[in-house]
Amino acid sequence: MDQIITFGEVLMRLSPEGNKKFIQANLLEFYFGGTEVNVGISISNFGGNVKHISCVPNDFLGDTAMAFLQKFGVSTSAIVRSNRPLGVYFLEVGAVMRPSSISYNRSHSSFSEIQPSMVDWEFAMAKAKWLHWTGITPGLTKGAYETLKVGLKLAKEKGIEVSADPTYRSGLWKYGENAKDVLTDLLSYSTIFIGGINEMNEVLGTNYSYSNEDFINASKKLMEKFPNIKKVFDKIRTSINASWHKIRARMWNGTEFRETNDFDITHIIDRIGTGDAFAAGLIYGLQKFDDYKSMEFASAACALKHTYEGDVNYATVDEVMGILNGNVSGVFKR
Amino acid sequence: MDQIITFGEVLMRLSPEGNKKFIQANLLEFYFGGTEVNVGISISNFGGNVKHISCVPNDFLGDTAMAFLQKFGVSTSAIVRSNRPLGVYFLEVGAVMRPSSISYNRSHSSFSEIQPSMVDWEFAMAKAKWLHWTGITPGLTKGAYETLKVGLKLAKEKGIEVSADPTYRSGLWKYGENAKDVLTDLLSYSTIFIGGINEMNEVLGTNYSYSNEDFINASKKLMEKFPNIKKVFDKIRTSINASWHKIRARMWNGTEFRETNDFDITHIIDRIGTGDAFAAGLIYGLQKFDDYKSMEFASAACALKHTYEGDVNYATVDEVMGILNGNVSGVFKR
Amino acid sequence: MDQIITFGEVLMRLSPEGNKKFIQANLLEFYFGGTEVNVGISISNFGGNVKHISCVPNDFLGDTAMAFLQKFGVSTSAIVRSNRPLGVYFLEVGAVMRPSSISYNRSHSSFSEIQPSMVDWEFAMAKAKWLHWTGITPGLTKGAYETLKVGLKLAKEKGIEVSADPTYRSGLWKYGENAKDVLTDLLSYSTIFIGGINEMNEVLGTNYSYSNEDFINASKKLMEKFPNIKKVFDKIRTSINASWHKIRARMWNGTEFRETNDFDITHIIDRIGTGDAFAAGLIYGLQKFDDYKSMEFASAACALKHTYEGDVNYATVDEVMGILNGNVSGVFKR
Amino acid sequence: MDQIITFGEVLMRLSPEGNKKFIQANLLEFYFGGTEVNVGISISNFGGNVKHISCVPNDFLGDTAMAFLQKFGVSTSAIVRSNRPLGVYFLEVGAVMRPSSISYNRSHSSFSEIQPSMVDWEFAMAKAKWLHWTGITPGLTKGAYETLKVGLKLAKEKGIEVSADPTYRSGLWKYGENAKDVLTDLLSYSTIFIGGINEMNEVLGTNYSYSNEDFINASKKLMEKFPNIKKVFDKIRTSINASWHKIRARMWNGTEFRETNDFDITHIIDRIGTGDAFAAGLIYGLQKFDDYKSMEFASAACALKHTYEGDVNYATVDEVMGILNGNVSGVFKR
Amino acid sequence: MDQIITFGEVLMRLSPEGNKKFIQANLLEFYFGGTEVNVGISISNFGGNVKHISCVPNDFLGDTAMAFLQKFGVSTSAIVRSNRPLGVYFLEVGAVMRPSSISYNRSHSSFSEIQPSMVDWEFAMAKAKWLHWTGITPGLTKGAYETLKVGLKLAKEKGIEVSADPTYRSGLWKYGENAKDVLTDLLSYSTIFIGGINEMNEVLGTNYSYSNEDFINASKKLMEKFPNIKKVFDKIRTSINASWHKIRARMWNGTEFRETNDFDITHIIDRIGTGDAFAAGLIYGLQKFDDYKSMEFASAACALKHTYEGDVNYATVDEVMGILNGNVSGVFKR
Amino acid sequence: MDQIITFGEVLMRLSPEGNKKFIQANLLEFYFGGTEVNVGISISNFGGNVKHISCVPNDFLGDTAMAFLQKFGVSTSAIVRSNRPLGVYFLEVGAVMRPSSISYNRSHSSFSEIQPSMVDWEFAMAKAKWLHWTGITPGLTKGAYETLKVGLKLAKEKGIEVSADPTYRSGLWKYGENAKDVLTDLLSYSTIFIGGINEMNEVLGTNYSYSNEDFINASKKLMEKFPNIKKVFDKIRTSINASWHKIRARMWNGTEFRETNDFDITHIIDRIGTGDAFAAGLIYGLQKFDDYKSMEFASAACALKHTYEGDVNYATVDEVMGILNGNVSGVFKR
Repeated sequence: MDQIITFGEVLMRLSPEGNKKFIQANLLEFYFGGTEVNVGISISNFGGNVKHISCVPNDFLGDTAMAFLQKFGVSTSAIVRSNRPLGVYFLEVGAVMRPSSISYNRSHSSFSEIQPSMVDWEFAMAKAKWLHWTGITPGLTKGAYETLKVGLKLAKEKGIEVSADPTYRSGLWKYGENAKDVLTDLLSYSTIFIGGINEMNEVLGTNYSYSNEDFINASKKLMEKFPNIKKVFDKIRTSINASWHKIRARMWNGTEFRETNDFDITHIIDRIGTGDAFAAGLIYGLQKFDDYKSMEFASAACALKHTYEGDVNYATVDEVMGILNGNVSGVFKR
Repeated sequence: MDQIITFGEVLMRLSPEGNKKFIQANLLEFYFGGTEVNVGISISNFGGNVKHISCVPNDFLGDTAMAFLQKFGVSTSAIVRSNRPLGVYFLEVGAVMRPSSISYNRSHSSFSEIQPSMVDWEFAMAKAKWLHWTGITPGLTKGAYETLKVGLKLAKEKGIEVSADPTYRSGLWKYGENAKDVLTDLLSYSTIFIGGINEMNEVLGTNYSYSNEDFINASKKLMEKFPNIKKVFDKIRTSINASWHKIRARMWNGTEFRETNDFDITHIIDRIGTGDAFAAGLIYGLQKFDDYKSMEFASAACALKHTYEGDVNYATVDEVMGILNGNVSGVFKR
Repeated sequence: MDQIITFGEVLMRLSPEGNKKFIQANLLEFYFGGTEVNVGISISNFGGNVKHISCVPNDFLGDTAMAFLQKFGVSTSAIVRSNRPLGVYFLEVGAVMRPSSISYNRSHSSFSEIQPSMVDWEFAMAKAKWLHWTGITPGLTKGAYETLKVGLKLAKEKGIEVSADPTYRSGLWKYGENAKDVLTDLLSYSTIFIGGINEMNEVLGTNYSYSNEDFINASKKLMEKFPNIKKVFDKIRTSINASWHKIRARMWNGTEFRETNDFDITHIIDRIGTGDAFAAGLIYGLQKFDDYKSMEFASAACALKHTYEGDVNYATVDEVMGILNGNVSGVFKR
Repeated sequence: MDQIITFGEVLMRLSPEGNKKFIQANLLEFYFGGTEVNVGISISNFGGNVKHISCVPNDFLGDTAMAFLQKFGVSTSAIVRSNRPLGVYFLEVGAVMRPSSISYNRSHSSFSEIQPSMVDWEFAMAKAKWLHWTGITPGLTKGAYETLKVGLKLAKEKGIEVSADPTYRSGLWKYGENAKDVLTDLLSYSTIFIGGINEMNEVLGTNYSYSNEDFINASKKLMEKFPNIKKVFDKIRTSINASWHKIRARMWNGTEFRETNDFDITHIIDRIGTGDAFAAGLIYGLQKFDDYKSMEFASAACALKHTYEGDVNYATVDEVMGILNGNVSGVFKR
Repeated sequence: MDQIITFGEVLMRLSPEGNKKFIQANLLEFYFGGTEVNVGISISNFGGNVKHISCVPNDFLGDTAMAFLQKFGVSTSAIVRSNRPLGVYFLEVGAVMRPSSISYNRSHSSFSEIQPSMVDWEFAMAKAKWLHWTGITPGLTKGAYETLKVGLKLAKEKGIEVSADPTYRSGLWKYGENAKDVLTDLLSYSTIFIGGINEMNEVLGTNYSYSNEDFINASKKLMEKFPNIKKVFDKIRTSINASWHKIRARMWNGTEFRETNDFDITHIIDRIGTGDAFAAGLIYGLQKFDDYKSMEFASAACALKHTYEGDVNYATVDEVMGILNGNVSGVFKR
Repeated sequence: MDQIITFGEVLMRLSPEGNKKFIQANLLEFYFGGTEVNVGISISNFGGNVKHISCVPNDFLGDTAMAFLQKFGVSTSAIVRSNRPLGVYFLEVGAVMRPSSISYNRSHSSFSEIQPSMVDWEFAMAKAKWLHWTGITPGLTKGAYETLKVGLKLAKEKGIEVSADPTYRSGLWKYGENAKDVLTDLLSYSTIFIGGINEMNEVLGTNYSYSNEDFINASKKLMEKFPNIKKVFDKIRTSINASWHKIRARMWNGTEFRETNDFDITHIIDRIGTGDAFAAGLIYGLQKFDDYKSMEFASAACALKHTYEGDVNYATVDEVMGILNGNVSGVFKR
């Protein structure tokens, strides 16, 4: 009973080098990611024992995607293969006042066409102590929603922790189900909520503001509606422009409100996956530290992620703790 | 009445540099191609006036695909846009005894989901003198087949030349129609057949051998079945290995059989699109030369294509004529 | 009568990747540019119908330069070819307190050796509604000056708008003519002045300061001397260092003085061509918007250009309007 | 009892792209390899269950080396870490008549300074069914020799297969022991000999020629001296030049002599690790096929390796079997 | 008597492009450096006549290292060759709050194993007017310490200037000698001290603070203990984060305390070698200017170095003087 | 009296990677070369003491060109600087039947505009024992011709060897002088002729065939006309295609005719500068070996050059001797 389980799409990311646009490029860098993959790899990089469940194609792209996860020590033994293509996204990285731009090609991917019958959850979760899910997966297709739900039910039966990052993304939810209904359904199996005012308003049908007071009230209301949820963690981002952000975090754990200081990220290298880095930091932290220190660990992990190319957070525990211990000026020792 | 029309999918090609596999790569080169696109661009590079008809996404990838065609002078005014993704293929380039390997992601692309109502053929073909099609397009989806058929009917009405390259590819034809029936239907609108024994056996239901004698007999039988077809051109490839091929061509134009000498391509750089280079050479040649010289021009163009990276043939008329005039030893002048 | 005409040199730009110096590099990125080319391509990227007039070599470099313009939809039908080389410039991109450094090789280029007899202006401007010129062209050679003048005369005859960006660059004007005299001659054919205090002092022989008051006075004096000029637009740049600029714009249109807010460009990617992006934004804007909104559009376009590598502004109208509508924090939607 | 164990140094390989020399390069490609690593990864790529035992540094280079093995599914659970640096080699890849050139920096590496006390062989070999070693390891240092010997003794006790590739390399054996004595000692624990006339002459002190007859006689003599050895496999390379080789293999298994046909490798991409690919093919093959087919499988695997960059053989079982089934002309299917 | 002599290790630096980590990279950029090499090359780039003394391997890496020095005009005639490997360091470049990370492989390098008998100091210093050393060299091995000491003694005999940059680095000093004793010994031969409070406290055994007052007191005390030392120069760095530093300098020359203004380095490209750029600026400056202007020159050189990739300062005298003359906003002229 | 002097243009070479055309490239590799530069660097790489005389621009490109020569140990002390641009050539590298293609931009370069007054030949040749010239230089401009002639006269006065490689290139000789007259003039100062039938026919006005007999007769006639010429060396190339050549050499030294065996260069990497490698091999060889061995050395050097990218031959004496000693199969030792 010591594995952390993540379930979601393995996406290939294709992006010109630096801040080039596709129209001026000949070469693309590629990485693999996907929100739940990012969480899984980051936890594995912290030393956690992670198994990722997904469906990838049975060709050289699927092999390459699997190898990417294995490289970081994530178990791929429960990943199934199909003859559908790999989900892909194309990214143009913005700068200053130019936003990044994304083109998805995932609507008929191996993962989008997953069905509950394809995953042996009993086998996959035999040693699980934690299951993490996000709002991307149920937003893809009915099959993805239903497959996830089987896993969540099993998690509840097993009494393990279930963290939910119910990110709402308007570009999804095309298959007929209503986001609010589905998220409400899935949150009923969850114990930890990673999200902010937007996500709480979405599932509560409320209209809370971004103030700390409203955050506490919204969290309380959320816990009323979903009594299994014991803790709410929120990450707040202030964008000066596409190259310069500030982030901080806050929490309500039923009894205590806390918030962190700002991290000032003056030269962003890659903004993708920074929310996933926060979630991974939390999941790892909550197994080692108290709630507040977990949130601080998650914030520092999130800040560090902005300095790595690709979706994945390469930070190790030592690197995150270095920042928590006060070395935020990037001085190195030799 | 002077434009050459090509109709087909614009595919993005993604490939690691050199002969690397995806599992060992970080960077991909990308080009655009697709069999009919390749034909169109090559004819434009020979100085022809070409318009390509297709459907691409209305995002930065679609813009980039359009820009690629425009760069080579191909008109994109009849290309329509949709909110479906661009077709993509991933290529690992083999060497010596290692075959190349391809992974397609095109089954729900913008072009695959094209419908006859989306193309204004009257407008697009207002100045057309030639229409070229291949067996890839009707092998994709019913919509692609039916859209093509509208164009072919119009071409027949206009009395313009229609060249057919009915390549049969077993990985396609998944949508319910039978390849033989569909190709038979479409060939009835065509005037020039670019293909060999395999393609003729496929549509005739025969079993001819690769001998010149059988080639002539098959061609005669084809012309009986499809009286509009006046000429058959065939390209024969001998593969020593993935890096070293020999090619030659042969023809039957109803009265005369001719064949070319071999080109010995000792160091292949890129084998993709070489058949399209042959077709483009023919289409261009038949407007300038007699049948035999057209075939020689097409063979030399095809041979040259093996020396360019990407799907597209960059050869100019001067470069092809240089080879026909005997400079096959790659000597350059300065 | 709907084409915008640009006339000037197509320059090849060669630059090491990032901020490397040539002495430490093995690889160069290349783009094409040139001040009037930059304006033309940017307008075409906004959806304008642009024809560029120039002279490039009749070899593979000339072909590649033409293909670059065609890629962005700019008509190259009036570009002539010669057997002189392409103009080239070599660029080392600075950072922080290190200035960029440029080495030109253009003094005997195809364009520098252009002569009035080489351009068929009547044909080229048959559908023109606007002609744009800059002070670079008449600063190159007598032939370039005289060729431009033929076009300007024709524009005046046709009564179309003529925008002038009379940038004075001390490294030019080596061929015997005096900059002030030549610019005075050419401004007499122009209707819109894109330039600031330096340029007005240069042609007026005055000594106005950078204050708004002096800007208005100088503009008035300019319009007295050149009664065809109806509007003056100026872009003001504050350089914190080579990596961090602020820009704003101001205008006098004979009746009204306006100025924009500052754009704070905290992480410059490429500073070349930003003035051309401003000019292109104005020319496009003045066909759609009032003077002030045109200037705002131009300022935002100029700011965005700092985030693209190369000479060319890749921004679309949607991207510029996104900024004008308040999204300056680089947030993206998915 | 189903794991294949490899033991040896993980080397970082650094090489300019293509055939460049260091003196003309700015960029290096890096891979990880080492003769036993290459064998282990290749077997894992064939689907085998492989554990590699080694010592790497406890810094980011060690992490990266471990990740490389994990990527291909090789278990790193028995790899120990030290504060000594990673072994490195620098490679200039030759062509035609220019030989490749290597510079090693491994004499004080983590692995070279390994000591028997650092490896828990009992734990590491708990599930082992095969142990593979080469002559490189005992040629490095006394510590490497003695550590290997502990493993070999344990293998003999467990009665598992032990394959030996006693490559003699004159650049090693600097630490005081005599190659012949050490190899004789270690061969006494081995059951399968992968090597040719040179290696047999080295350990037998004989002077056999390269003829098949002498190969059989030498093999017989070897089996007399080392009664545990049951089979001898030899790979013969004919070098036309650095870019064009032919290879074939031969065997004596105590009762039967067999040899394969030649593979003609006309365009070599990377010659490093091809012997290791042969060994890996054999080890995998001998668990599935008879002796002759194993040797054929190994030959085809070895031939394929010449088409992959890096030390590692990326070939899958399907790819090798494709060649054995007659597709040596690199034709691909789509 | 006009050569400046530097003595120290030539290190190869290997680093992924940009801010990538090794675990996500395939390609490494390489440069050569080493603290004394950096000083030598920078002085040569200022027009100084520099000879570097070292030991490099007699293989293609040694050749490439020598070629690197020669490229910048540094004499390599006194560099000896051995059959030991080149010292190497691997660098991951941090950003914002992520520190850079270094892995050294130098402890058994050609230079580390240097012995006094290997260098002919009389020959090498025949025309020397200045010798520069740093605390890195005596921290490596006893042989390096003793070889340096021979040179320092000779310098003292010749009465030439000796500049000392006694940087203390805790990762060194593993060979048995005490840093304080060795540095005390070597400083007795030195005339100019380039270092700050940490270095003075280290050799004096004191505990001065970073205040200007303490800097003056420490300098006085240093000059008491080492009467040959006539001047002390200190560079002060304030790290906002790994991407944004401020630097200034201060000096005590026995009679006068001076300090410079801050340079605000808002977008650091490469922080390595910036201290060496300061030392080089001083050594060059002190031959041309008074003490204060030398320090200003050194500060500007140091600031500029943050904008060049690699260890080496590419700045020329003109570029440094441009900054001293007030062009700190990176404006360029054309 | 021990320096070898080369005189000629330093050209920058710009080429897409591999066999790409400019129209499909974004990146260019750059090298420096020029026929006499190539000879000088190759001799320096063999250990010769070489000084190159030229004129390059006084900007960062000139600095980079100088650094390139210095890197290989060639003295640049006699190179003068001007404010004219560097000569540049653009190269598309062909393959198989596709010829390479070149675009020059050198007609107004620093070197083309050299004048006799700019070179201090007395100073530059103070220690000269050999002067090498080629037919490229006098084909550029009258200034280049006359400047060379001053040096040749001085060489004759000093009685040193003068090697002539009077390559005739039809793209040059645009400035009014007749090639035959100028070459005849310059050959009168020369002692060694490096060239074949074409060059001899050019200066003799004869029509000899390529047979060995005619080669001997032409050589005799040449020596009659130019009594200072004592030896003629010719290199013969057979082009199978652009990727596969054979070369051999022949000589007449007044008494003896000899020819070498063929080198079979099956996989050409770069054909540029191979003739210069032959000349450099000869010049180096004639100082160490007899005529025949010098020619063998030169042939092997020429063959090796085909395996290096760029204009320059990186081969060392050891590498060339390795081939002469029979290692032509590219086997390496470790």
